[in-house]
This record gives sequence, C-alpha cells and structure tokens, in this order.
Amino acid sequence: MILETLTSALATGAVRVVDLTQTLTEDFPTIVLPPEFAPSAPVRIERISRYDAAGPAWYWNNLSFGEHTGTHFDAPAHWFTGRDMPRGTVDTLPPEHMIAPAVVIDCSAESAADDDHLLTRAALEVWETAHGRIPAGAWVLMRTGWSLRKGAAYANLRADGAHTPGPDAEAMRWLVQDRGILGFGTETIGTDAGQGGDFQPPYPAHHYLHGAGRYGLQCLTNLHLLPAKGAVLFAAPLKVHEGSGSPLRVLALVPDAS
Amino acid sequence: MILETLTSALATGAVRVVDLTQTLTEDFPTIVLPPEFAPSAPVRIERISRYDAAGPAWYWNNLSFGEHTGTHFDAPAHWFTGRDMPRGTVDTLPPEHMIAPAVVIDCSAESAADDDHLLTRAALEVWETAHGRIPAGAWVLMRTGWSLRKGAAYANLRADGAHTPGPDAEAMRWLVQDRGILGFGTETIGTDAGQGGDFQPPYPAHHYLHGAGRYGLQCLTNLHLLPAKGAVLFAAPLKVHEGSGSPLRVLALVPDAS
Ligand SMILES: [Mn+2]
Ligand SMILES: [Mn+2]
Repeated sequence: MILETLTSALATGAVRVVDLTQTLTEDFPTIVLPPEFAPSAPVRIERISRYDAAGPAWYWNNLSFGEHTGTHFDAPAHWFTGRDMPRGTVDTLPPEHMIAPAVVIDCSAESAADDDHLLTRAALEVWETAHGRIPAGAWVLMRTGWSLRKGAAYANLRADGAHTPGPDAEAMRWLVQDRGILGFGTETIGTDAGQGGDFQPPYPAHHYLHGAGRYGLQCLTNLHLLPAKGAVLFAAPLKVHEGSGSPLRVLALVPDAS
Repeated sequence: MILETLTSALATGAVRVVDLTQTLTEDFPTIVLPPEFAPSAPVRIERISRYDAAGPAWYWNNLSFGEHTGTHFDAPAHWFTGRDMPRGTVDTLPPEHMIAPAVVIDCSAESAADDDHLLTRAALEVWETAHGRIPAGAWVLMRTGWSLRKGAAYANLRADGAHTPGPDAEAMRWLVQDRGILGFGTETIGTDAGQGGDFQPPYPAHHYLHGAGRYGLQCLTNLHLLPAKGAVLFAAPLKVHEGSGSPLRVLALVPDAS
C-alpha cells in the first residue's frame, strides 16, 4: 500500500527524484595525497566498440578508476578506525542503510567567503533550533556550493594541501556519538576539510564516522535542490568484493514544494 | 508525508530492502563474444593500500571492468537500435526512471528443466490472468534460478555459444510495444537468451528494448524473495560520461508478507 502510494506520488510529481551525482569523466579531480603514499588510479573510459567492426550492433566501454572517485561512498573499512567493523565493506553493508532520510546544512554563504570554512557543533545546534533534532539514522549533508567549481578551483590545492570546507572535530564527534547519524556527505573531494589532517584527531570525519561503522559521501551536487529536512536518500555503492567504497549514483526523493 | 511514512515503514520492517546484486569479483563470468569482436576487459580489484606504508590510515583499491559486468544496467545506446535515442546514455537518463515498480515472472521450474527455456507472450498472458495487467513503466523480471549457478555452469557455454533461458522475440515485442514496460531484467548474463543471436530479429530483448529507449538489467539475484507484483526497484547506473551501461547496486523495496 505504501509502495503503491510512493509509485503514484512519483508518477504525479508529488515526489520528485533529484540526481545528486557528478558525471564521471576522465578529468574529474580526484584526491591528491603526499608523494610518499600510493595514489589512486586515474579515471579511464575506453571504447571497446561503437557499432563498428569491433562490435557491429553494440556500443560499450571499459572503465577503470579508484574506489574513491567522483561522487562516491566511503565504507567503514576505508579508515583504520573502522578496520574491524562487522559488515564494514561495501559488499556486506546492510541494504536497509542504503535508503535513509537526509538533512541539509546550508554552509554555502560561509564557504563562499572562506575556502577553509568549518562546520561547528554550534552551527548544527542553530540548525536544530530552526528545524528540530537531527534524526538518528539520517544522512547529514553539508551544502557548500563547492560542486559549482570546476577543475583546479574544485580541488583548490596549495603548497600546504587542499583548502576546502568541512566539519571540525567536535561537530563530527557530536553528530556520530550524540546524534547517531548514518553518515556525512559533502560537495568536496573528502568528507573532511582540506586541512583536516592537522585536526585533532586527524581527519575527524573519517575517524569518527568509520570508527562507529558509519558512512561518507563525497563529490555530491545539487544539494541546493533539497529541503533542509524531508528528503530521502538512495545511496547504494557497488557490491565490490571487500571494497572500501565506490563511485555510485546518489538519488534523493523530495516532496514537491509547490 | 509519504516520505515520512516510507521512512517509518523501513524502520519498522513493514517495508523491507532486498539486495538483488551479485558480488563483483575477479572470477564472476562476463559475456563471451565470438573472437572476431573486441572483448570486454576482465574484472580487476587491485589494492592501493591497507593500513600500511602505502597508506597508513586507509584502505582502498583500484577497479577496472567493462561497463557490462556483474549485475549491470543496459542503456539504450548500448544497441544500434537505440543509438540515436535522446537521453540514451547512463549520464543523461531521466532520474525518475531509476525508481519504478517491478513484476516477477517465475520461470524457474521451466528453466531447471530446459537450459534454453524461452519466455513467451502466451506465458506472460497466463501471468496476467493471475496477477492483472503488466503496468506501463514497470520492470519485468524473469526469474530462472540461474543466479544459483556458479562459474562455467552459470555462463553455460557450448561450441555453439551460451545456453541460457530468455525471452522470445514476440514476448519482447509485446512487452515493449503493447505493455510499454520500462525494462526487462534477468538472472543470466544477457537480457536475451543464450541462443538469441539466431532469433528474428537477432537479440530481440536488446532490439526492442533499446530501440524504444528502454532498459536492461542482467545478473540479478534473489528474485525468489520478491512478490509477483508490488515491489519497487531502485536501479541507478553510475553516471559515466556517455556510458552505455554500468555495474550497479539493484535494490528492491518489498512489502512485508507476514
Ligand atoms: Mn572517499
Ligand atoms: Mn549488458
């Protein structure tokens, strides 16, 4: 009955589907690590055939990329704090975690003013005053407008690393431990701020989320099309054997505002 | 309101999430073409680091595979009949097509008895007598039990090609033209029967589906956990630039039967 109602609502437009995914291209920026660490492979999309001698009736490509490429999902095993987590790789995740409510914290003005803007617990508490308590089991999405940037401005690398907005350590500790969120999503290349390696603990989003068996989403777009609360996110990574994450299509179901 | 009801139903188990995806491994069988055509790349999952010198705090892999690998989605541009279809590649598909109702045609007994079992229009009309008209815009899933087979028995190659069940040409013409389905899904490596190259037209599932801008799903599993009707499918391929298809996670929302 509820599923018939959902189908009808999708057909009439009472519920809309919003694509939060960036297009995967060979030049989409990926994370850059210091040279002492092994890098991710580049994105490659290589034609096998396109209605030609190599395949007269069909078109298809070979794909290659690192698990953490484009709009992608971080599973608990991606980080050392989640290495022993049960069902911590993408092939063993509970499917019921792949459909969950989402709230959106609008940090776009602050992020336009400061590349290193940090989302704080205080700002989250201000959000709760306006919208109510962040529900346990929800995705928290940090809207920064960063997805509108292209190329070098998107990665925003300087000599001391990336300068991109993200959460501070106390915000992440509080979201995971005091609010019991399902995961944290960003428009930037990481769930952590570009300078998050200098935080205490280093990379607090990775540290707290994955240490509690929770998830990350990165390189999201179209967050400005979501309400502050009330959307439902469909975020289902590829079922890669013992995978630490994967590119994925992230969709949001959104009640029609009109 | 409908989305809050959905979230509650997922939390209470009144709606369950069933994973219809096979695990992507290096030895999962992919389609084998005659040697005059270019083959798909093999699946490779190659470690970059795992809490070691190459990345002390993190675990990740590089991935490579053809677009039509494992549980995967066929977009219209995959076939010559769909080559000029608007929004025919995975990056341009309408997101509202990625969530849709599904019906399941149980052909498991017939497929156990005959590797080359063909689903006919007559069998579909028998299904309609029991369950009602196949809705326009629905996925039609052919349950064969094939996903329980492993390795060589799954591909089931002989000297004259694969011997696996699938739809006949009139079944596909009727489903696409007379029922207006969204797509057709199978447990086997193709949407077409293993011997479908000898049908008229050749590969009728590909021919009719993609020529009408419709979709295919292959290598599905767990179809025995779905009702004959009433499930809703989430099937959202990767947003690969001009991609002809992709591996994906396919989930079904199912009303609890108990
Ligand atoms: Mn990542
Ligand atoms: Mn295919």
